[in-house]
Amino acid sequence: MAGNTFGRLFRVTTFGESHGKALGAIIDGCPPGLTLDEEYIQKELDKRKPGCFLGSTPRKESDKVEILSGVFEGYTTGTPIALIVYNKDAKPSAYEHLKDLFRPGHGDFTYFMKYGGFRDYRGGGRSSGRETVGRVAAGAIAKRILEEYSIEVTAYTIALGGIEAKKKDLSKVYQNKLYCPDEEAYELMIKEIEKAKKEGDSLGGVVEVVAKGVPAGLGEPVFDKLEADLAKAVLSIGAVKGFEIGSGFKGAYSRGSQNNDPISPKGFLKNDAGGVLAGISSGQDIVIRVAVKPIPSISIPQKTINKNKEEVELVVKGRHDVSAIPRIVPVIEAMVRIVLADHLLMQLANLAFQKRIKFPDFFE
Amino acid sequence: MAGNTFGRLFRVTTFGESHGKALGAIIDGCPPGLTLDEEYIQKELDKRKPGCFLGSTPRKESDKVEILSGVFEGYTTGTPIALIVYNKDAKPSAYEHLKDLFRPGHGDFTYFMKYGGFRDYRGGGRSSGRETVGRVAAGAIAKRILEEYSIEVTAYTIALGGIEAKKKDLSKVYQNKLYCPDEEAYELMIKEIEKAKKEGDSLGGVVEVVAKGVPAGLGEPVFDKLEADLAKAVLSIGAVKGFEIGSGFKGAYSRGSQNNDPISPKGFLKNDAGGVLAGISSGQDIVIRVAVKPIPSISIPQKTINKNKEEVELVVKGRHDVSAIPRIVPVIEAMVRIVLADHLLMQLANLAFQKRIKFPDFFE
Amino acid sequence: MAGNTFGRLFRVTTFGESHGKALGAIIDGCPPGLTLDEEYIQKELDKRKPGCFLGSTPRKESDKVEILSGVFEGYTTGTPIALIVYNKDAKPSAYEHLKDLFRPGHGDFTYFMKYGGFRDYRGGGRSSGRETVGRVAAGAIAKRILEEYSIEVTAYTIALGGIEAKKKDLSKVYQNKLYCPDEEAYELMIKEIEKAKKEGDSLGGVVEVVAKGVPAGLGEPVFDKLEADLAKAVLSIGAVKGFEIGSGFKGAYSRGSQNNDPISPKGFLKNDAGGVLAGISSGQDIVIRVAVKPIPSISIPQKTINKNKEEVELVVKGRHDVSAIPRIVPVIEAMVRIVLADHLLMQLANLAFQKRIKFPDFFE
Amino acid sequence: MAGNTFGRLFRVTTFGESHGKALGAIIDGCPPGLTLDEEYIQKELDKRKPGCFLGSTPRKESDKVEILSGVFEGYTTGTPIALIVYNKDAKPSAYEHLKDLFRPGHGDFTYFMKYGGFRDYRGGGRSSGRETVGRVAAGAIAKRILEEYSIEVTAYTIALGGIEAKKKDLSKVYQNKLYCPDEEAYELMIKEIEKAKKEGDSLGGVVEVVAKGVPAGLGEPVFDKLEADLAKAVLSIGAVKGFEIGSGFKGAYSRGSQNNDPISPKGFLKNDAGGVLAGISSGQDIVIRVAVKPIPSISIPQKTINKNKEEVELVVKGRHDVSAIPRIVPVIEAMVRIVLADHLLMQLANLAFQKRIKFPDFFE
Repeated sequence: MAGNTFGRLFRVTTFGESHGKALGAIIDGCPPGLTLDEEYIQKELDKRKPGCFLGSTPRKESDKVEILSGVFEGYTTGTPIALIVYNKDAKPSAYEHLKDLFRPGHGDFTYFMKYGGFRDYRGGGRSSGRETVGRVAAGAIAKRILEEYSIEVTAYTIALGGIEAKKKDLSKVYQNKLYCPDEEAYELMIKEIEKAKKEGDSLGGVVEVVAKGVPAGLGEPVFDKLEADLAKAVLSIGAVKGFEIGSGFKGAYSRGSQNNDPISPKGFLKNDAGGVLAGISSGQDIVIRVAVKPIPSISIPQKTINKNKEEVELVVKGRHDVSAIPRIVPVIEAMVRIVLADHLLMQLANLAFQKRIKFPDFFE
Repeated sequence: MAGNTFGRLFRVTTFGESHGKALGAIIDGCPPGLTLDEEYIQKELDKRKPGCFLGSTPRKESDKVEILSGVFEGYTTGTPIALIVYNKDAKPSAYEHLKDLFRPGHGDFTYFMKYGGFRDYRGGGRSSGRETVGRVAAGAIAKRILEEYSIEVTAYTIALGGIEAKKKDLSKVYQNKLYCPDEEAYELMIKEIEKAKKEGDSLGGVVEVVAKGVPAGLGEPVFDKLEADLAKAVLSIGAVKGFEIGSGFKGAYSRGSQNNDPISPKGFLKNDAGGVLAGISSGQDIVIRVAVKPIPSISIPQKTINKNKEEVELVVKGRHDVSAIPRIVPVIEAMVRIVLADHLLMQLANLAFQKRIKFPDFFE
Repeated sequence: MAGNTFGRLFRVTTFGESHGKALGAIIDGCPPGLTLDEEYIQKELDKRKPGCFLGSTPRKESDKVEILSGVFEGYTTGTPIALIVYNKDAKPSAYEHLKDLFRPGHGDFTYFMKYGGFRDYRGGGRSSGRETVGRVAAGAIAKRILEEYSIEVTAYTIALGGIEAKKKDLSKVYQNKLYCPDEEAYELMIKEIEKAKKEGDSLGGVVEVVAKGVPAGLGEPVFDKLEADLAKAVLSIGAVKGFEIGSGFKGAYSRGSQNNDPISPKGFLKNDAGGVLAGISSGQDIVIRVAVKPIPSISIPQKTINKNKEEVELVVKGRHDVSAIPRIVPVIEAMVRIVLADHLLMQLANLAFQKRIKFPDFFE
Repeated sequence: MAGNTFGRLFRVTTFGESHGKALGAIIDGCPPGLTLDEEYIQKELDKRKPGCFLGSTPRKESDKVEILSGVFEGYTTGTPIALIVYNKDAKPSAYEHLKDLFRPGHGDFTYFMKYGGFRDYRGGGRSSGRETVGRVAAGAIAKRILEEYSIEVTAYTIALGGIEAKKKDLSKVYQNKLYCPDEEAYELMIKEIEKAKKEGDSLGGVVEVVAKGVPAGLGEPVFDKLEADLAKAVLSIGAVKGFEIGSGFKGAYSRGSQNNDPISPKGFLKNDAGGVLAGISSGQDIVIRVAVKPIPSISIPQKTINKNKEEVELVVKGRHDVSAIPRIVPVIEAMVRIVLADHLLMQLANLAFQKRIKFPDFFE
């Protein structure tokens, strides 16, 4: 129990169910003096809004975020920032027929088992992708912190429905509906989505994240290594089934002479490490890849059971995406930012002590 | 800072450097009343002992573990269990020439940057693979806990130097030096190791872990999902660069109709989920795979620099393995057990409350 | 930073400022299956409502609590419960003249120093007593948990303005406006309040808390002892300056032969320990006392300075209580309940393992 | 379970029982680059050594501390510092007759209840005062950190056996065996100890702590307030039953006009707050007082029971102090230092961000 808080110095706690009253987050540990307004956060939230993309759910949520605390006259105050998004277009009745079923690939069965049968079955309740609203809102605060240190995080789609991006032109990422850095691949992905939609099926994909400008020194070995916290952060997102950093699984098939990154007086000569060595950022780009499973809600009939152990044929209707991509992209981005903001602050404590920075003395 | 503790109810803190006086762990939260002795822990430690395997370091460490606290008359008492392993065969002088160098693929540069130049350069200090002694010792305690609930965790090698195991016969795992479940693959892997050794190079590989008997209900959404904590646990091990659960990256290329696991009145009909749904164990086997990079210490000359930014050609001598496999296998196993023991206890709190189990009343 | 979360298995995170939009709490770790509605929480909140008591602030806040998540069809679901109370009668403009001042006894100066000058000065912002709205709301959830184990917590006033309660008749506590268990003392306290009010001064007092029905075994030595967490919990409330358990400071003047509680086959013969031994509950009543300072807002002129280090004579007007008592009483009660609920769950994990309670097996 | 770790950025984990093999601590989060050797730590440990003081236990323990990790060539490296003290003069057999008894005032009964009957009864096992060896050792590292910021913590005896110190001359503290700042009171205290010893009884007392040089800004509202963490820290020490800061319980009997500390352009005009306002240090001295109960081991016969609920008359023999004072004094000092070091590092993170201090860039 009590698993809804993430981070140590920059700490995010989220709440809310798919068809409850509201979703949101408390962000604790944001330093004071940062400019912040709802518009800034909204911009991030809009990236994951339903209804924006082809093949995406027609649920109409404006997802307007409201800042309830922690910001005063346009500046953060160092106190907890509470963010709230009210659910507007909840249609709980649409889920009545699912209430005793365990949908394959969903959390229905496991929530049923863990919580003794007490669960909000409407749209998956807390296990819904909609839970990520709080994460993305919190990620916007992390973004605000990272900006001050010129750290930029970009997530983008490198595979969808089996189509792989060949190019990685980050300037293209926000120019198409799938956050894809390769225009040709984008066109093919769209076709794949249309095809899957017609067939009532869903698609998985791979998202890559690059963090630029991360200084050397972030990460707290041996357990809170930067890559360990990144892995936890992204695996905590529903639909994510895999994580790799740098050369990752491919590196597992290589040799040390290939995989090691030589160092010259001007810096590292390549980056198979993905920006970390021994759990600590090296100053190179952080590069990770994230495996996203096909969303489990499909309209192709599936075999399952209900809570009385009776066989049921399930045909999911309702409002569903064909793929968690692209809407999961800003969520992954948010989680990576949250990890970096947290580690940035931890390393600042270390660095500040090393420099013996002075405390202000008002009466001096 | 302060990243050397893992877990919440079952909590492990480790210490120690490769060539310091000792390594060890404090395990806090082990329930009382379990039989435990040094022999039991030693058996696990012996699995990662140097010198056991072909291609493995000739460093001679008996790695004898001593229980310093928390066990009384053969039973755990619920108080912290301190375990210590003294370094016997430390040869710090062998590293004198590396003291100002940044070895490619190692933590030398990042530790240098993070800790302001103060670092124990001998054999990598805290960033050495030897750090895992404390993890494996702690994992033995976790194993003892899991046994009481008949939960069995087995890690084994499914790829090494590009050779993949085709069979997964778990009865073979402990019958060969590489923890490989496929005898034929084992033979080929050994050849690959010999070849790499001759060439002064090193090899990566992939380790798979299966946990059997895990009850449904473990995992604490939304951040402390079971797979999230598993990912963090294994990514916190040096040399690990990737993690996947169930169908993982392959699943990212599949469709919902393929990837969903149908449910029948007798149980799940397949296990592409890898034993978790929405962050909670489903009662199926937990199945994860771990990417292990080739160890960075190779005797092939490499380009690097020293702390004065001068170019240096590095030829690593010293005592080194050709691959982190097989010695990393018991470490991964240990970390998985630690996560499961922690989550088992958390879910027990939940379950016990749901059942309103009674407290003993001495004076009743 | 990030100090707004309390507890481990039962975890409370609060947010909100005195004159911001809203205050509230996220309660994470509440077990599923408990009946819960807004009325139940409201009842606790009403105990700390402004305007109820003589000498109390005339600020008119209905403090209506809303449940935003974690409760479905009248039952908790095990997911985070978000509670919100909107500020209705905020009059921020009333504080404009205080914006550059450091009021003696308040957090103005320390918030100014800690947060680099960025602070919500209106009514103390986050350092206001109004912050405790979230605590009391969260405490109601803890109360709901404790009820299931018949644990009852009662806080009451034993000293106010120098007047001490001689009797401790808990049946009287809710029959007067000061939560005083002694009717005669109550009358004298009221007079003292009236007098202080006329003089523009404020009063301190002492609150005692008794927790009945706490089973033996709660508390996690050596650092998370039950009394240690209780002390932290109450000292985290603004205006609290002291804590003692059992014989406390008086016991420090006694001898072992007096202070030890003898044990008979029927139980302890007295309770100078206050219900804990070596950090663990003994099954006796938990008894603690809490020192509450006089509230710093007084209308008697005071010397202070502004942020330009200029001398200022401060005469606080605005809406203020004469004493933090009685409104702090339900806050202390709430914090004690939060600690007990958290420790109850932790010990349940321990107990459940000792009993090897079984996990439900759906497919068995 | 798992209550043996304290702190967030500066984190201490202790282990060990009174008559086990060894006691010790892992200190995680100590910044790199601090000079540190065993002699420095030993000096702190010697302050709590048995056998130093009149009325003190004759157990002969040299309590030699050994650094096992985290220090290299005389400097801390930022990795965990493991400290160990082996028990030399353990006489477990002396406790055989107590094995089934519940000594009044001790943790025997509660440990029995919590841990299902599995306990190390020898000298109280983990609940022994000897457990504090790890705390004091860890406190020495905290001291080392605080020195760099010229923060000095001194604890001293202000009451013992009913005798109160009238003077507080800190220069006298280390010139007598009771850490008493008043020579005359010291003489009377000694007499009281002798008397109690003769009578087979024990004495309680009060310890005061002053921390000088603490900068404004330490403390993390609303739950991790500085005084809240200080309260938890000292209440986590066995034998401590009360805590107050500043005017404390006396302040609860005062009025706002008396208790508020006026502020002038040169600083605060008095310090009834005890150095904190709203949970954050103000730059004034931190002043706390700690109630220490008479130690429960007395040779006067006491009524108790054994685990079969049979009445027993207990006459404690063995080796015991007459009072926890003076040996508890360095323990309290250590815990206060640990809290301050932890909060110092947390505020440094905040401050460093506010100043946007730069990360070192090796390749710049």
